[in-house]
Amino acid sequence: MQITSFHPPRRTLMGPGPSDVSDRVLEAMSRPTLGHLDPAFIGMMDEVKSLLQYTFQTQNELTFAVSAPGSAGMECCFANLIEPGDRVIVCQNGVFGGRMRENVERCGGTAVMVEDAWGSAVDPDKLEDALKAHPDAVLVAFVHAETSTGAQSDAKTLVQLAHQYDCLTIVDTVTSLAGTPLYVDEWGIDAIYSGSQKCLSAPPGLSPVSFNQRAADKISARTTKVQSWFLDLNLVMGYWGGEGKRAYHHTAPVNSLYGLHEALVMVQEEGLENAWARHRDNHLELRHGLEAMGIEFVVDPQHRLPQLNAIAIPEGVDDAAIRSRLLHEFDLEIGAGLGALAGKVWRIGLMGHASNLKNVEFCVSSLRAVL
Amino acid sequence: MQITSFHPPRRTLMGPGPSDVSDRVLEAMSRPTLGHLDPAFIGMMDEVKSLLQYTFQTQNELTFAVSAPGSAGMECCFANLIEPGDRVIVCQNGVFGGRMRENVERCGGTAVMVEDAWGSAVDPDKLEDALKAHPDAVLVAFVHAETSTGAQSDAKTLVQLAHQYDCLTIVDTVTSLAGTPLYVDEWGIDAIYSGSQKCLSAPPGLSPVSFNQRAADKISARTTKVQSWFLDLNLVMGYWGGEGKRAYHHTAPVNSLYGLHEALVMVQEEGLENAWARHRDNHLELRHGLEAMGIEFVVDPQHRLPQLNAIAIPEGVDDAAIRSRLLHEFDLEIGAGLGALAGKVWRIGLMGHASNLKNVEFCVSSLRAVL
Repeated sequence: MQITSFHPPRRTLMGPGPSDVSDRVLEAMSRPTLGHLDPAFIGMMDEVKSLLQYTFQTQNELTFAVSAPGSAGMECCFANLIEPGDRVIVCQNGVFGGRMRENVERCGGTAVMVEDAWGSAVDPDKLEDALKAHPDAVLVAFVHAETSTGAQSDAKTLVQLAHQYDCLTIVDTVTSLAGTPLYVDEWGIDAIYSGSQKCLSAPPGLSPVSFNQRAADKISARTTKVQSWFLDLNLVMGYWGGEGKRAYHHTAPVNSLYGLHEALVMVQEEGLENAWARHRDNHLELRHGLEAMGIEFVVDPQHRLPQLNAIAIPEGVDDAAIRSRLLHEFDLEIGAGLGALAGKVWRIGLMGHASNLKNVEFCVSSLRAVL
Repeated sequence: MQITSFHPPRRTLMGPGPSDVSDRVLEAMSRPTLGHLDPAFIGMMDEVKSLLQYTFQTQNELTFAVSAPGSAGMECCFANLIEPGDRVIVCQNGVFGGRMRENVERCGGTAVMVEDAWGSAVDPDKLEDALKAHPDAVLVAFVHAETSTGAQSDAKTLVQLAHQYDCLTIVDTVTSLAGTPLYVDEWGIDAIYSGSQKCLSAPPGLSPVSFNQRAADKISARTTKVQSWFLDLNLVMGYWGGEGKRAYHHTAPVNSLYGLHEALVMVQEEGLENAWARHRDNHLELRHGLEAMGIEFVVDPQHRLPQLNAIAIPEGVDDAAIRSRLLHEFDLEIGAGLGALAGKVWRIGLMGHASNLKNVEFCVSSLRAVL
């Protein structure tokens, strides 16, 4: 065995994430590692917190990045907010609602599923029916932007409904954060998680989360310990929270956080509203290009995510062969379908740094060349 | 708010980790991000697996890096191997044995504690007494190299004992991997975890783990689901294991894995035995320098870790003030005491890339200057 250094090809990443990472962020990752208790590093973490509060549009004190990918951010929300026996309403309209159910059950909760077709938004009426039918439910969980289908749900309305029936809310914004309007405080979202590798265009491996006071109070009032030591917010907060003193909990992923910091600085420089508008504009350009080729979108126009475009694979086309040609002839990655949509759709991401006109044109012309 | 790019100072990291990361590894982190299902990335993951097998000295198929820090690697071992009601013997001689107990209990197991003084090795006789007293125990867990005290235990003997009493073993090698002799297969260790940021000198955020067939069989034969979806090895293995096809589980931390790959290539280039010898030699140099200043070690010579030197803070010296001066005047980080040893000891790391003669001399002369 003699393995040598790895030099990756440079792809254009237009799948469901990771998205293309800018050279600025890549370079930030390569800065000298600091100790995780170094005052200089702690100052940077305070900035990450402020920048995440801006990006989430929240004043929540409990706002930080879980030291692991989005799946762990999801688990952080569920493991902290659920106690054994809790009834949780989970809205499912794609793969990630199913993963939420897994989380509820593994935390000892009971999941009540509210099902919508894959590619549709979550139906508020069905949620209300479930809330009426299960007055003992304590939590409602749903996905704002379903990465598996490209559909966006009306988070504001769903959260309002949950609150009317005295439920807290957990909202998955892995794909929506910084790509499409999201107002955590204005909408009243109680617990939220996202990922670093979608519209933030930081390398994968971190999960921004935020919890409001109601959620924090529920966590402090638990009568059982959180089943995960690593994700126990009562412990993690000793490290991220408060002023000044940071207690040791686990060793933070220092260089990855440099990357997230730089990516968030770039969001702030552009301005959130401008970032949302850019995602929308590039989506419309992509739509024109694809529709001119006769390619159809899976999701209704009013629920389409601008940053994740699920399109029907044309009749008679070999899914895997086309994606392989795009990858090997054009260094272009687009996404396959997932779960119920495997083999039926492609997912074209226009996320974060990758959402630009050059990519739109490159994708359309490459697809035209191979089809 | 206007937050700008973060430019860390360049420290010399001689605490308990993270250790200094070489420019080669830092540069590797900044290479272009690939999709986590890209064939080029999957090829690199196969190499990471081979390199980890070499570093752990194992042929275990189930060898990979958990996408989160060492604490999550610990939790991965416990959550997968413990089912509710299992009795687990935990040997504690420092902070991390206590964290193991937390893990056992949060997984629904019962922990039997075998206590040794902080700074001592785990006493095999005490373990045997506990094994005799608790014939229903199914698992023994201990720390090979206690990062909180600098003491090394006799892993080979402890594992042998556990096996005589039909227990599987979980061994913490966060600080020992690549710094001091470790033979997973020869010693028969069943489940093992480590960290990227100690003697591997990769950035923090990944946890190498390995499981032998007995451990894998116990996991497959579980009658209850692993409580963590993110860490469930039955699911993770679809991504890391087997040949060719990788099922999507979670998005791997792509750039961090570039860094780990490069760090492991460097271990392979040097050769494990040479790396162990280098750690020992530099430890002896440090010892000479410190003893010449009248500074005493906390751990008996035969149980001292070469990569983590716990020394008694001299009488009348202000712990925090001295560490602060080292940091601000010399850009030198050494570690504080943890838990029962807080305020009583300093921990000087000579780990991985940071274990070199220049650092030894710099540390001794800087300490002499401020004391």
